[in-house]
Amino acid sequence: MNAVLDYLKSNHETFLNQLCDYLSFPSISAQPDHKPDMKKCADWAVAHCLSIGLKTRLCKTPGNPVILASTPRRKGKPHYVVYGHYDVQPPDPLDHWKSPPFKPLVENGNLYARGSSDNKGQHFAHLKAVEAYLKTGTELPVDITFIIEGEEEVGSENLVSFLKARQKELKCDGVVVSDNGIPGLKHPALTYSLRGIAALEVKLTGPARDLHSGLFGGSVDNPAMVLCQMLGSLRDKRGRVTIPGFYDDVVKLSAYERKQLKKLPFNETGYKKLLGVKELFGEKGFTAIEQRSARPTCEINGLTSGYQGAGSKTIVPSWASAKLTCRLVPNQDPNKIEKLVIRHLKKICPPTMRIEVEGGHKGEAYLMSPTGPQAQAGLNALTKAFGHGAVLLREGGSIPIVNDFKKILGVDTLLLGLSLPDDNAHSPNEKFNLTCFHKGMAMSAILWNELGQLK
Amino acid sequence: MNAVLDYLKSNHETFLNQLCDYLSFPSISAQPDHKPDMKKCADWAVAHCLSIGLKTRLCKTPGNPVILASTPRRKGKPHYVVYGHYDVQPPDPLDHWKSPPFKPLVENGNLYARGSSDNKGQHFAHLKAVEAYLKTGTELPVDITFIIEGEEEVGSENLVSFLKARQKELKCDGVVVSDNGIPGLKHPALTYSLRGIAALEVKLTGPARDLHSGLFGGSVDNPAMVLCQMLGSLRDKRGRVTIPGFYDDVVKLSAYERKQLKKLPFNETGYKKLLGVKELFGEKGFTAIEQRSARPTCEINGLTSGYQGAGSKTIVPSWASAKLTCRLVPNQDPNKIEKLVIRHLKKICPPTMRIEVEGGHKGEAYLMSPTGPQAQAGLNALTKAFGHGAVLLREGGSIPIVNDFKKILGVDTLLLGLSLPDDNAHSPNEKFNLTCFHKGMAMSAILWNELGQLK
Repeated sequence: MNAVLDYLKSNHETFLNQLCDYLSFPSISAQPDHKPDMKKCADWAVAHCLSIGLKTRLCKTPGNPVILASTPRRKGKPHYVVYGHYDVQPPDPLDHWKSPPFKPLVENGNLYARGSSDNKGQHFAHLKAVEAYLKTGTELPVDITFIIEGEEEVGSENLVSFLKARQKELKCDGVVVSDNGIPGLKHPALTYSLRGIAALEVKLTGPARDLHSGLFGGSVDNPAMVLCQMLGSLRDKRGRVTIPGFYDDVVKLSAYERKQLKKLPFNETGYKKLLGVKELFGEKGFTAIEQRSARPTCEINGLTSGYQGAGSKTIVPSWASAKLTCRLVPNQDPNKIEKLVIRHLKKICPPTMRIEVEGGHKGEAYLMSPTGPQAQAGLNALTKAFGHGAVLLREGGSIPIVNDFKKILGVDTLLLGLSLPDDNAHSPNEKFNLTCFHKGMAMSAILWNELGQLK
Repeated sequence: MNAVLDYLKSNHETFLNQLCDYLSFPSISAQPDHKPDMKKCADWAVAHCLSIGLKTRLCKTPGNPVILASTPRRKGKPHYVVYGHYDVQPPDPLDHWKSPPFKPLVENGNLYARGSSDNKGQHFAHLKAVEAYLKTGTELPVDITFIIEGEEEVGSENLVSFLKARQKELKCDGVVVSDNGIPGLKHPALTYSLRGIAALEVKLTGPARDLHSGLFGGSVDNPAMVLCQMLGSLRDKRGRVTIPGFYDDVVKLSAYERKQLKKLPFNETGYKKLLGVKELFGEKGFTAIEQRSARPTCEINGLTSGYQGAGSKTIVPSWASAKLTCRLVPNQDPNKIEKLVIRHLKKICPPTMRIEVEGGHKGEAYLMSPTGPQAQAGLNALTKAFGHGAVLLREGGSIPIVNDFKKILGVDTLLLGLSLPDDNAHSPNEKFNLTCFHKGMAMSAILWNELGQLK
């Protein structure tokens, strides 16, 4: 193990240069113009995996190819899949970047480039850890297969069929993903739960056309007013969603989890400043961290009705619509929630309105046991590598592939983020903290050891 | 009097041809390209007034000129002002017209042309009535001055200063305006009240920017939700506005008025069909006619927040805004109402939001005594000319010039509309019913006689 960690330490500069090469490809999956760059970047990654000593293939898909690279498979050994992606977000707006997005720059302990933390830098750390085992002739405690796809930023459309087609080859004991964040260098974290989602759109139609509010207003119902009254009633004063049955299947936070979540750093003043709000608001009886990651919501994402230009237009609008998304927590079924919301909205819609409610995209929440052996292995690796006690984290957003892994491969995903809150993922001046890179490589190396020791 | 009415009857065809000439000018005040047409149309009207025997001037304004034409002024005689406008709405969309908008067409007892009912045809009827007195050598019971402006469709911007500059010359006993509608030929009507208006815009700002609803949603308040809750609370289940003080100054409908308004034809099924609604809704305890003309409202005219495009965007929007207009009834002060609404919205806005509320355009309601001598004179003239008992009408919309006349000239306005509900004012295929034209001329002739008899 020491040989492995020494190898990682003594090659920092080489690894940084290699990562800079990797980051110089504008592998922007959203922009068709960059299709050749996607291929070049994938080819570079294939060559690099081969140079490490991995059995590597570039697998075609209807979209961008997937890199499949594995350590020699041994009978009876645990097998883990590491997931990452080589595609990146578009760098726009370009004039907000202090240095060109595809000319990596090291400054003040950070590596600036599009894709540096999301996600090239993060999965590269895992590649380097495996390289260290292979190059130092240290026996790998587990077999490892890397899946590095090129369509994460455009919805991973081809990943499910890719996984299904290779279900046997990819049979494993768990998945490791570093494509998310931690609160800070002193709080390395294992993310053990994600929220799900159910999106809906509701439209109320009153009069057949916009009506003159002088001639008719007062004798005819106003869809904008009715929409406000209906949507306004979906949340009570205590911040709870009022839709009957909404909380029925929610898995309550355990005392252990609440205690763990309390260990997370949280500064209310700083948080308010970050969001730019005067006051916070959330479901009474829960901390802000719990509210945003462990409690379900029903949010209005957009409102549309009537006249929206300059000045005024004296109409009773013909219709009013809203976009809604419910963030869901473990055990809430997105299909069931969608049905509940639709049923409730239809029930409270007055006879003056015609209502249309349509469900949109849906995703389940994710939960792995925070006290199980794999979680403990992850926490141990984090603690040892970062030199600070690792904490447990729930994320408020969704990472849909985690549910795909669960469904197709039947295993949990260890989410071991290496990105810091100020890394500007998806924004100009994206960066990757070099300490996170170094400690991330060590964490990965230790993780395989920890996982290898599990019965 | 008989000579006057005979003159009107025997010249129907001539008058129709003259009106067609008047309607052939595309006097579209909103479109700068038609500036020369405005002038040509005004010149035609001046020549026509002179030919009738009126002392006529074309008065310059910073915008389009105003035609001022009067019968010879006599000492000690009552003096009435007749207001009309020679400008018209743009005819677009042109392809919806069955015949060219500026080539008047007579078909099935209707005269089709832009401006036929709004307003050339209506004030032309008054001109013809005065012509009948002058050409038959019948003594006019009152002196009459016509003000025919060219900017009504673009807000009558120069009318106030025009009136103020000629306050002495225009000193009069009342104003007569036919620029509105009646329920039907069997229900000639005097409009004795109009609603006023107070427009507002409210904007709530929560987070400094749109936030990821997964990462932050649940711990931060949502401006779209708060806006819905705030606006939704402005109207109760009985259809009443909940803003404290809103109804304080409302002049109650008298038993006489309610009785008169009940005489108006109203068919609920037909009204619902006209508006395209399944059910009506309004303030409990009032009929639909009362609700839309004699009761104040607070309407949402437009809603804007967050994402309004296709699909979904999972954000907590940074802000949400709404446009509101209150329709006001007699004695409600628009400035006071504006203050009440602003104060109330600020009061109910939670500390999680920054609120901005701005007042917009305002106009007072109008009320003249429906039982006073001038109103009775109007009702008599209508009844005699149309051969059906005239009814009293309140209009739900605003006609701002009526308040200007009241303020500057200190007199009431007799609103004696000659337009039918299906005349398509402001729409393609605008028309003027020829029976309304004929009966309107007679009504005007009789009106001067009725008004001349008042003490």
